[in-house]
Amino acid sequence: MEELKHVLLESIKGPEDLKRLDAEQLPQLAGEIREFMVDAVSKTGGHLGPSLGVVELTIALHRVFDSPRDKILFDTGHQAYVHKMLTGRHDWSLLRQRGGLSGYPNRAESEHDLVENSHASTALSYADGLAKAFQLRGEDERAVIAVVGDGALTGGMCWEALNNIAAGRDRPVIIVVNDNGRSYSPTIGGLASHLADLRVTQSYEHALDLIKKTVPRTPLVGHVAYEALHGIKKGLKDVLQPQAMFEDLGMKYVGPIDGHDEDAVEHALRKARRFGAPVIVHTITQKGHGYAPAENHEEDCFHGPGAFDPVTGELKAKGGAPGWGKLFGQEMVSIGAERRDVVAITAAMLHPVGLAPFAEAFPDRIYDVGIAEQHAVTSAAGLAMGGLHPVVALYATFLNRAFDQLLMDVALHELPVTFALDRSGVTGPDGASHHGMWDLSLMQLIPGLRVAVPRDGARVRELLRECVAVEDGPTAIRYPKGPAAEDLTAVDTAGGMDVLARHEGSNGVRVLLVAVGSMAHTAIEAAERIAAHGIGVTVVDPRWVKPLDPALVGLAVDHSLVAVVEDNGRTGATGDAVARLLRDAAVDTPVRTFGIPQEFIDHASRGEILADLRLTPQDLARDLTEAVTRVANRGVGHPATTD
Amino acid sequence: MEELKHVLLESIKGPEDLKRLDAEQLPQLAGEIREFMVDAVSKTGGHLGPSLGVVELTIALHRVFDSPRDKILFDTGHQAYVHKMLTGRHDWSLLRQRGGLSGYPNRAESEHDLVENSHASTALSYADGLAKAFQLRGEDERAVIAVVGDGALTGGMCWEALNNIAAGRDRPVIIVVNDNGRSYSPTIGGLASHLADLRVTQSYEHALDLIKKTVPRTPLVGHVAYEALHGIKKGLKDVLQPQAMFEDLGMKYVGPIDGHDEDAVEHALRKARRFGAPVIVHTITQKGHGYAPAENHEEDCFHGPGAFDPVTGELKAKGGAPGWGKLFGQEMVSIGAERRDVVAITAAMLHPVGLAPFAEAFPDRIYDVGIAEQHAVTSAAGLAMGGLHPVVALYATFLNRAFDQLLMDVALHELPVTFALDRSGVTGPDGASHHGMWDLSLMQLIPGLRVAVPRDGARVRELLRECVAVEDGPTAIRYPKGPAAEDLTAVDTAGGMDVLARHEGSNGVRVLLVAVGSMAHTAIEAAERIAAHGIGVTVVDPRWVKPLDPALVGLAVDHSLVAVVEDNGRTGATGDAVARLLRDAAVDTPVRTFGIPQEFIDHASRGEILADLRLTPQDLARDLTEAVTRVANRGVGHPATTD
Repeated sequence: MEELKHVLLESIKGPEDLKRLDAEQLPQLAGEIREFMVDAVSKTGGHLGPSLGVVELTIALHRVFDSPRDKILFDTGHQAYVHKMLTGRHDWSLLRQRGGLSGYPNRAESEHDLVENSHASTALSYADGLAKAFQLRGEDERAVIAVVGDGALTGGMCWEALNNIAAGRDRPVIIVVNDNGRSYSPTIGGLASHLADLRVTQSYEHALDLIKKTVPRTPLVGHVAYEALHGIKKGLKDVLQPQAMFEDLGMKYVGPIDGHDEDAVEHALRKARRFGAPVIVHTITQKGHGYAPAENHEEDCFHGPGAFDPVTGELKAKGGAPGWGKLFGQEMVSIGAERRDVVAITAAMLHPVGLAPFAEAFPDRIYDVGIAEQHAVTSAAGLAMGGLHPVVALYATFLNRAFDQLLMDVALHELPVTFALDRSGVTGPDGASHHGMWDLSLMQLIPGLRVAVPRDGARVRELLRECVAVEDGPTAIRYPKGPAAEDLTAVDTAGGMDVLARHEGSNGVRVLLVAVGSMAHTAIEAAERIAAHGIGVTVVDPRWVKPLDPALVGLAVDHSLVAVVEDNGRTGATGDAVARLLRDAAVDTPVRTFGIPQEFIDHASRGEILADLRLTPQDLARDLTEAVTRVANRGVGHPATTD
Repeated sequence: MEELKHVLLESIKGPEDLKRLDAEQLPQLAGEIREFMVDAVSKTGGHLGPSLGVVELTIALHRVFDSPRDKILFDTGHQAYVHKMLTGRHDWSLLRQRGGLSGYPNRAESEHDLVENSHASTALSYADGLAKAFQLRGEDERAVIAVVGDGALTGGMCWEALNNIAAGRDRPVIIVVNDNGRSYSPTIGGLASHLADLRVTQSYEHALDLIKKTVPRTPLVGHVAYEALHGIKKGLKDVLQPQAMFEDLGMKYVGPIDGHDEDAVEHALRKARRFGAPVIVHTITQKGHGYAPAENHEEDCFHGPGAFDPVTGELKAKGGAPGWGKLFGQEMVSIGAERRDVVAITAAMLHPVGLAPFAEAFPDRIYDVGIAEQHAVTSAAGLAMGGLHPVVALYATFLNRAFDQLLMDVALHELPVTFALDRSGVTGPDGASHHGMWDLSLMQLIPGLRVAVPRDGARVRELLRECVAVEDGPTAIRYPKGPAAEDLTAVDTAGGMDVLARHEGSNGVRVLLVAVGSMAHTAIEAAERIAAHGIGVTVVDPRWVKPLDPALVGLAVDHSLVAVVEDNGRTGATGDAVARLLRDAAVDTPVRTFGIPQEFIDHASRGEILADLRLTPQDLARDLTEAVTRVANRGVGHPATTD
């Protein structure tokens, strides 16, 4: 009877049940939560490390505050599993799968969930707005709490928000800093070393143990004792500094609190609430806390593992081809060995974007700027002005954060910066804010930017090299998550494009199918199905989607219909660009575009989503056959250019 | 002989000439610079206030450092007039006009200019990148100096950069804070009040005068004396605080320095350079310093006046119709009186975006968040979550900074936030980074966002009201700079669109001309010219460009050619959206789109630029007549739908 293992947890249908528990029961509850979470995530994969680190913190939050009247906002959202459990969500069998729980807060699941965006550093701004609204509406009794990691604090939005929250001295926003000293990977930068002054990293557990054993369990005394111990090591000035920084901005500061001492956190939160003014509650937590394989995992404390053995923590082998990003990383090492001017930038994503090998090979040529995409891009502009060729590796969806910097700081200045965008297109289980479906459209807007989209692993290497060879302006290369597609050899070329397949057809009707990047395999299979109807099909891989190859115009004239298929939002992407290219050349061959509809796409597997969107070979063949048949039947199937 | 008035200034061909001057000559030089600047800008308009405030600071920079070997970066760039003079630019007759000096640093003008982007808060990131490049290339002797205003420091990019600069303890970036206590309008927020602890605002001049008269002119003693005086008023703790904040991040701090004491600034800069580590040099300046009408100008110290009388400071009357933004502001007051839930947000642009009357009428419902567009948008999301309807008023070009926040924080959450985007389209004298030519394309990407574009003043009011009436998702309204277009009455409607003109034509060829917003007058005049050839023309104003009115499909079927004309970059904007709408409906009527080419556009007058881009009625008529004639001649001029 598995349920019996989690008897307390199962009794929690909402925060009111949690409030009814005795304090002595809470360690057992915390234990059950950890056990349940490890068990559940070991089957589905998910953001385990962050949630293990906030078990006691989340219990305390829901005991002290009254959600949903009070508003508890989780920044980034991948640490919200405990919150989900405590607000009554107990079926985790389909976590991050179609029909199952979202990996992030989700308003459709619960009135206790508020922010669905998983991009970091937003919660403080939401909190400022909510507090302003409650003040104006005379609902001052409602508390607003933002839970933010030390990593997310490196994002500029937090600074903008802190500055405004501090200015609202009668608006009591409570900012809970969940400080585990490592955002995705160990945090770097001035803020981090500042926060680190509060932690005696190696002796931290020991010191806290000592405090717990030797002083009464009231936060005030514990705090003083902690500071005393800390002060012996660091000197009085260092102990006094951290408060100063936040207090310089006009904010109260409570801390540091042992984030795994539920009682201490509760007391700190109650104290913070009593201030009636903006306040920072600084909690020190350990990512992966309470599960040895996560605690001891050097790379990222089981930040977001796939399925694993819950006892040993051993990850289940994924198998298959090496990932797109891994190939990028390998080629970067090879390029780095040849060119001393090539440097790499990551925004707190060294391992996930595949740059760890480069960092190991060239430790003086890697820059981890923190969760700070804006700075990643503009500091790259500075590096390029200084004579280097930076490669900025980001998740495609996070390029959104640096559109203006790409446009004004890099492109306006025609600087040789290369962008490597991983996790492009439909990504799957992380849902709406992780799909990389915006970048191809955004990049079409940037004057002078050249954009390459590899169709397979060989093209990742080849196009990355072409990108870093460009020295008179910016370049970008984008590729999906997961194992790279099998290499596809071209049967011919047309201009600078690769022709991947050519079916002559028998009925005089011809489709030009432009396959962007990872859609090449789909397009080739669709073409075979279309050709079975006697329709001629040419499949081309443009390799570069910006600027488009002018040879497309000539090809379009020779075909009855031009179709573009891509793994990006349809609006403003390659399809629209091809259509515009033809219009501007006064070639009015009908165009049809296939891609992701311009909507927010829920979590599910990549395959399920692509099938929903009719981006399978079968559906594409069916839709294209129907489209070209209609065009042919109405007798305008083969318009020539008007030139 | 006007030149005789500026005998020292005229002798400066570059920084080396400046270095040759004796210290005693510098006050005269500063005087000449101010006189020359007031005289020049009084004729052309320009960013006078900011540049008047940095005369001594800029002189000191170019005496201490060795540009262009050392890199001096001016954040935002509108305070660079003095820098331009000291690097040998003396012909100011065509400032911000075609063929004349740019109002911002411009690499084509001088090797001393680096950053052309006028969007705030970027210089620190550039500086971090440059310093990293110099370190890696072994060019450690080159200094990197970023000059940034206290207002720009409220932008999140600065936080991201500070965090990284501080981490590079062996990379000596020098950050000069030009603190005049008012960015565009008086700075608000926690940082501002923190910096204000350094200034005894009212008695500041007096205190410094006292220091100057009574203590030796060495910065160290002056500094101590200043702090002593300051300390009497504020208490010792306040005096010690400001250093703490920057030093918490691991940076040295020098200051506060009287930014109008050239000698003191020189000494501080030399000291900062000697540190060989990241350092903040905090200078206190007065915007508009040395020109009474600017010093005493309450709104913005002559931030960017038009032409004015140099003696009295009286602005030359502009005349003409009220501006688009003014009408927006008036209607906001009227809406605010009716609806208590409507609040307004500005990012340090209260007056320029027309919200001053609203702020006066509803002082508890206006939020100035600082130069912080990201926070403006996400705090608006929070306000909307809290039950209010926020209107975020920005310059169109600055929406770039908050694309991700609009997408993920507002639109994903389907929140009722209205965006009012001023200065859209071709703006003119401020050049590439001020043209509002990106917003219509960006906004097409946002699921659920509705976008209105008023063609005249009456439509600003009408569409703003329609925007704030929408409660199930975000809306936007965008309009240009300058006087609103004359009201244009519709002759008919088609769906929700206004038909502005209808010419039947005599030769069976018909053009559907979709005129977006301010291009309506141009389109109507062009239509008359086209109709003179016997071609039928229907001019429609869609009013809402997203979502597009489905009635466009039916209209397109009835015309030989569909043309879209808009004041935005052509890529991904309304033209592309109309073409996609028709393609998706399998209507293959040829489409042609007219707008701004997707390129960076230099400064010139709006009229000159529109003429260059063939966006005059004459050119539009010529190009459209040619296009429709070609389509008609090739015999596919009137394809029906395939349905």
